[in-house]
Amino acid sequence: MAIGFRIEARDAGTAARAGTVTTENGSFPTPAFMPVGTSAAVKGVWPVQLREMGYACVLSNTYHLYLRPGHERVRGLGGLHRFMGWDGSILTDSGGFQVFSLSALRKVTDEAVTFRSHIDGSLHALSPELAVSAQEALGSDIRMVLDECVEYPAGRREVEEAVRRTTLWARRSLDAGRRAEGGLFGIVQGGMFPDLRKRSADEIGSMEFPGYAIGGVSVGEGKDLLRETVSFTAPLLPEGKPRYLMGVGTPADILFAVSRGVDMFDCVLPTRNARNGMLFTSAGPLVVKQARFADDPLPPDEKCECPTCRSFSRAYLRHLYLQKEILSPMLMTVHNLYYYARWMERIRQAIRVGNFGEFVKESLGSGND
Amino acid sequence: MAIGFRIEARDAGTAARAGTVTTENGSFPTPAFMPVGTSAAVKGVWPVQLREMGYACVLSNTYHLYLRPGHERVRGLGGLHRFMGWDGSILTDSGGFQVFSLSALRKVTDEAVTFRSHIDGSLHALSPELAVSAQEALGSDIRMVLDECVEYPAGRREVEEAVRRTTLWARRSLDAGRRAEGGLFGIVQGGMFPDLRKRSADEIGSMEFPGYAIGGVSVGEGKDLLRETVSFTAPLLPEGKPRYLMGVGTPADILFAVSRGVDMFDCVLPTRNARNGMLFTSAGPLVVKQARFADDPLPPDEKCECPTCRSFSRAYLRHLYLQKEILSPMLMTVHNLYYYARWMERIRQAIRVGNFGEFVKESLGSGND
Repeated sequence: MAIGFRIEARDAGTAARAGTVTTENGSFPTPAFMPVGTSAAVKGVWPVQLREMGYACVLSNTYHLYLRPGHERVRGLGGLHRFMGWDGSILTDSGGFQVFSLSALRKVTDEAVTFRSHIDGSLHALSPELAVSAQEALGSDIRMVLDECVEYPAGRREVEEAVRRTTLWARRSLDAGRRAEGGLFGIVQGGMFPDLRKRSADEIGSMEFPGYAIGGVSVGEGKDLLRETVSFTAPLLPEGKPRYLMGVGTPADILFAVSRGVDMFDCVLPTRNARNGMLFTSAGPLVVKQARFADDPLPPDEKCECPTCRSFSRAYLRHLYLQKEILSPMLMTVHNLYYYARWMERIRQAIRVGNFGEFVKESLGSGND
Repeated sequence: MAIGFRIEARDAGTAARAGTVTTENGSFPTPAFMPVGTSAAVKGVWPVQLREMGYACVLSNTYHLYLRPGHERVRGLGGLHRFMGWDGSILTDSGGFQVFSLSALRKVTDEAVTFRSHIDGSLHALSPELAVSAQEALGSDIRMVLDECVEYPAGRREVEEAVRRTTLWARRSLDAGRRAEGGLFGIVQGGMFPDLRKRSADEIGSMEFPGYAIGGVSVGEGKDLLRETVSFTAPLLPEGKPRYLMGVGTPADILFAVSRGVDMFDCVLPTRNARNGMLFTSAGPLVVKQARFADDPLPPDEKCECPTCRSFSRAYLRHLYLQKEILSPMLMTVHNLYYYARWMERIRQAIRVGNFGEFVKESLGSGND
């Protein structure tokens, strides 16, 4: 099954574009944000609630599913869609990023990355071919090649080696992927070195993927370097294919990247912050545990029409948070994901009606950066 | 505001009856089960989901709300209904049961029970008048008098003293309650001593309450003694008023008590068991963590049409439970509350169409006792 992508509108003043990505399990408008369902579940939200908020594509992590419950088990149960009760599109990562960030005792060779599970210390080897076949077992719609993600900061020599290996692995993934259904996206590395980004983009971009990602960002480099890297790299990616910025980010970072021509995003921020009691609002971040909200009858965001803001007060959310009620992450996650959904909707709308530039200007200093 | 109660159908072979309780915030059919929302939240469930399952009355605990966030704070925020986003009826207990079961350093006099908070050790005195005024501040529809609940086992002398004090407190509560809106229910004590139950029922029943509860059960006395006590006590309560069996219980215990003429129930079983990974099903209890469910594609209960059973497998629920995903208590709580809702619906229906006796017979050995 191929991934379809149609660009339907372009902003005159920036590289922003609006379009539609089509997968075997439906389509979704871009620029798109994908909620993260690490372990086959977006924490605190029913799938039907994601739908009601307008989401049509979620992300899940191959590393976690490979370890628990096991990708072959998910295949046996009819695939990830049926397993998690989600009939929209699913994007899975390759597992590589979590291997590099979560696991212990990594050893990387051209053949594979060997690591110990962060759960039980068991030894595993993840090759480009296994990353493809694991995602094939999961049956996700959009799959990612295994890449080598280096930490920040990293020396030029190390990044250069990662670029070389990422290209090698991309070729092998493509070969492995031809046998499988599902759209496989390539990933560009290169750290914070423009020439290495260029080299990686040229090499990965020359291969026939239905979509291309910018990897190796949001690894601690900070906002300025992130934006520089996106500004430099995005235009190097094939024009007619969806561009996916992995692991980004704040509403402001997303808006910035959209202006540079990026189409797809994922990030744990809205869901993780919700669990930590931080809400995105039109007036900036709101930390619910603060004492000043103890008697505050207002909804978290007076301009928001999400199910949480329609029914509950800041005082109630503070109470739930302090009581560690399960309802606390539930209500807050719905608000934050609703906020992100509306944010993306406004971005898409602005591009389509031709006032994206004004939207960017108005949004500066909104507080959610 | 008075509590209305109309008996609309009676079973010919037992004391079971079906009717409607009316409060300022709507009505609900009896026999009724009320989900427990201890701290102004039914754990793991949105209020709208409770409505969709058919619930119209929930319970909340005055002891917890008195300590956190404080009943006066809830009053200031517009009352408990607005606070927790629930527009149905709410029953609050008096706080007494939790004082006796959760707090430390209790000292009971005729004036009040003095205790230390289980949260921070602070010292409090709960009098019958304070129990009434705290519930008045919360603005619940159905309120309970402060009673003295003795532990099980307890000697006759101790239980006799508790009966005396419970009657004394009931009179004072009624005096305090006359000044307040909201229907105040009396509570019968008497431990496992039939003559003391009779004495308490006579004394409490002679006072003009809009409803009467059987207290002091489900305190560790076991199924047989519980049922004996209910069988003996329920017929002693005023006939035309709703009868409420506090803290009970399993589906089978509820069915038994209905056959003895009880109308209202609350219990943490469906919600607490859900969080502990135990589901009520038409085939008996299901413990999701068991290894045999690892590859089981069936819904938890093949005969159930709840949102959980319609979309998710035993294998997925097991995975969520083992991963400690927030979605685990969410999905399981909805299933268990749905199961209880359908159970009560079938009981009401059986009484109304005149085949309650057969229903009881069929239900024996269903496994959920």
